[in-house]
Amino acid sequence: GNTATIIDGKPIAEEIKFRIAGEIQRMKTAIGKSPGLAVVLVGQRRDSKTYINIKLRACEKVGIATVIAELPENCTESELLDVVSRFNEDPSVHGIFVQLPLPQHLDEEKIMTVVSPEKDVDGFHPLNMGNLAIKGRQPFFIPCAPKGCIELLLRFGVEIFGKRSVVIGRSKIVGLPIALLLQRHHSTVSTVHSFTKNPEQITSQADIVVSDVGIPNLVQGNWLKPGAVVIDMGTNLVKDPSSRHGFRVTGDVCYEEAIKVVSAITPVPGGVGPVIISMLLSNTLESAKRAFGFT
Amino acid sequence: GNTATIIDGKPIAEEIKFRIAGEIQRMKTAIGKSPGLAVVLVGQRRDSKTYINIKLRACEKVGIATVIAELPENCTESELLDVVSRFNEDPSVHGIFVQLPLPQHLDEEKIMTVVSPEKDVDGFHPLNMGNLAIKGRQPFFIPCAPKGCIELLLRFGVEIFGKRSVVIGRSKIVGLPIALLLQRHHSTVSTVHSFTKNPEQITSQADIVVSDVGIPNLVQGNWLKPGAVVIDMGTNLVKDPSSRHGFRVTGDVCYEEAIKVVSAITPVPGGVGPVIISMLLSNTLESAKRAFGFT
Ligand SMILES: NC(=O)C1=CN([C@@H]2O[C@H](COP(=O)(O)OP(=O)(O)OC[C@H]3O[C@@H](n4cnc5c(N)ncnc54)[C@H](OP(=O)(O)O)[C@@H]3O)[C@@H](O)[C@H]2O)C=CC1
Ligand SMILES: NC(=O)C1=CN([C@@H]2O[C@H](COP(=O)(O)OP(=O)(O)OC[C@H]3O[C@@H](n4cnc5c(N)ncnc54)[C@H](OP(=O)(O)O)[C@@H]3O)[C@@H](O)[C@H]2O)C=CC1
Repeated sequence: GNTATIIDGKPIAEEIKFRIAGEIQRMKTAIGKSPGLAVVLVGQRRDSKTYINIKLRACEKVGIATVIAELPENCTESELLDVVSRFNEDPSVHGIFVQLPLPQHLDEEKIMTVVSPEKDVDGFHPLNMGNLAIKGRQPFFIPCAPKGCIELLLRFGVEIFGKRSVVIGRSKIVGLPIALLLQRHHSTVSTVHSFTKNPEQITSQADIVVSDVGIPNLVQGNWLKPGAVVIDMGTNLVKDPSSRHGFRVTGDVCYEEAIKVVSAITPVPGGVGPVIISMLLSNTLESAKRAFGFT
Repeated sequence: GNTATIIDGKPIAEEIKFRIAGEIQRMKTAIGKSPGLAVVLVGQRRDSKTYINIKLRACEKVGIATVIAELPENCTESELLDVVSRFNEDPSVHGIFVQLPLPQHLDEEKIMTVVSPEKDVDGFHPLNMGNLAIKGRQPFFIPCAPKGCIELLLRFGVEIFGKRSVVIGRSKIVGLPIALLLQRHHSTVSTVHSFTKNPEQITSQADIVVSDVGIPNLVQGNWLKPGAVVIDMGTNLVKDPSSRHGFRVTGDVCYEEAIKVVSAITPVPGGVGPVIISMLLSNTLESAKRAFGFT
């Protein structure tokens, strides 16, 4: 039978974090400075707090200083913009991320545009996205999820150049920048979305499939070309009475079917997720190096 | 046999220009102002001068004021940037375009970034490109060639929503923004480029094919799905001793083969070309309206 490689992100994430911690140590020793990350949280969403805590803990472990600005759910746009502007000007802050989603009354796109492109470690500023899209240009930052996706492909020796890729989903956070990045690596990219007819047909032609939809088991075994490589970005909570919390996390891809067909696949959880967080650390370190002129 | 619709851009371009001229007349009457376009030309390239003259003449015809800054081939970057900055600040200028290509010693990408995004009627500023790429955002301007391409599709009643598109070529000027724009219209888009293997295979699945490569007769009849719609952006000079100037203009698509297969196609010349110029006028008018708060 087929034996698919399971793309385990955890050891890779650990290795990247280890390297980052070493670099930060070297920076401290050489110039007495360290990178700083500022987090902006509006409101009290529990899931947002969980995500932030994971990121903050990862920062501390490698030596990135963190500061968090918490604003009340009902804060005004100008209060929020003031906080962002202060971080923009603070030389000890090298990365700023605004935890999404924001409450309805705040204009997310407007606020993302106020984050300095030079501190936009999430890579969502339209200037960074434009520079990612345009050949011959370089964004200050590549968004973390796409960067993690490509990192896994490269580490596992997956050829991207000249290969057919299908990206399912086109969100600003994941699908769009992954498609742009795969194209930068000279893959032939097709983007599938909610209005695509017969998505299984085009997907089954791809050497590389990336899914970022949010629907468990959307991608079935017969969607996949034998030998394809699958990166499952989906992080979906499904009910599971047998588990301790009553639910478990699953991806977009029907894993049991896929492993019989593909040559390699990321499990959910444990595939791309851990690598994404290490990419945030990497972007913050890069930014601090640029700010300090440290190489 | 098959009777393909020939997508004639000339009457459409005329109609658009007629409408623009009317709008400008209305603007002059109402507020005593008219739109202004500034052109920056470095060096003496004959083809660049020809292109600029076509654009300037089109401007004059509809009532757009024009100003042209000509710099010597060996001008410095800072001289060029000064000229651009002056136009950025000039309230009578609503659109700025820098004629490409620039001489080798000038950093094209850097200069394009200095053009104010609010006057970037070519739509090449990375901020505008990023805003074109990101769902839910709006660029100040959509580049003229892609805008012309979509205009033709819409005018000829070609359904884009949910249809498969293949864009051959991914230049910043044409291929990339067309792919982004087709995706905005909810087409399922694949981008083919010079490293794509078997480009004919993926192209033959497309309902809409846009070519922007620069190779005459690259796209042959057997690349095309019966009934597809083809927009040929290629503008290639080929030798032709029988013609007056010794050459003629041809597209990327083998027209004689294609018309036997497709449901509609743009001829070269005369297809999308004339519409592209009217889009420059349209972008300049839009910009002036925005600047004057005129609706
Ligand atoms: N691993 C990570 O760190 C991250 C994981 N995620 C996960 O990725 C998933 C998507 O999240 P997010 O990007 O925020 O979601 P969005 O809702 O922003 O995007 C979902 C995308 O999927 C497309 N889509 C919806 N239904 C279908 C369908 N039936 N077939 C094909 N495409 C479809 C949508 O298309 P359309 O544009 O037409 O609406 C949209 O582009 C979630 O599981 C989320 O948890 C998200 C962020 C980071
Ligand atoms: N109608 C108009 O107003 C305009 C017309 N044009 C015309 O469009 C054409 C392209 O010009 P431009 O965009 O400036 O050119 P570029 O050289 O910038 O782009 C050409 C594109 O074609 C791709 N390509 C090259 N060879 C092949 C191949 N064999 N198969 C598939 N793709 C290939 C390249 O791929 P890769 O990225 O891998 O190198 C590149 O993306 C020309 O004919 C030009 O005259 C251009 C601008 C405006």
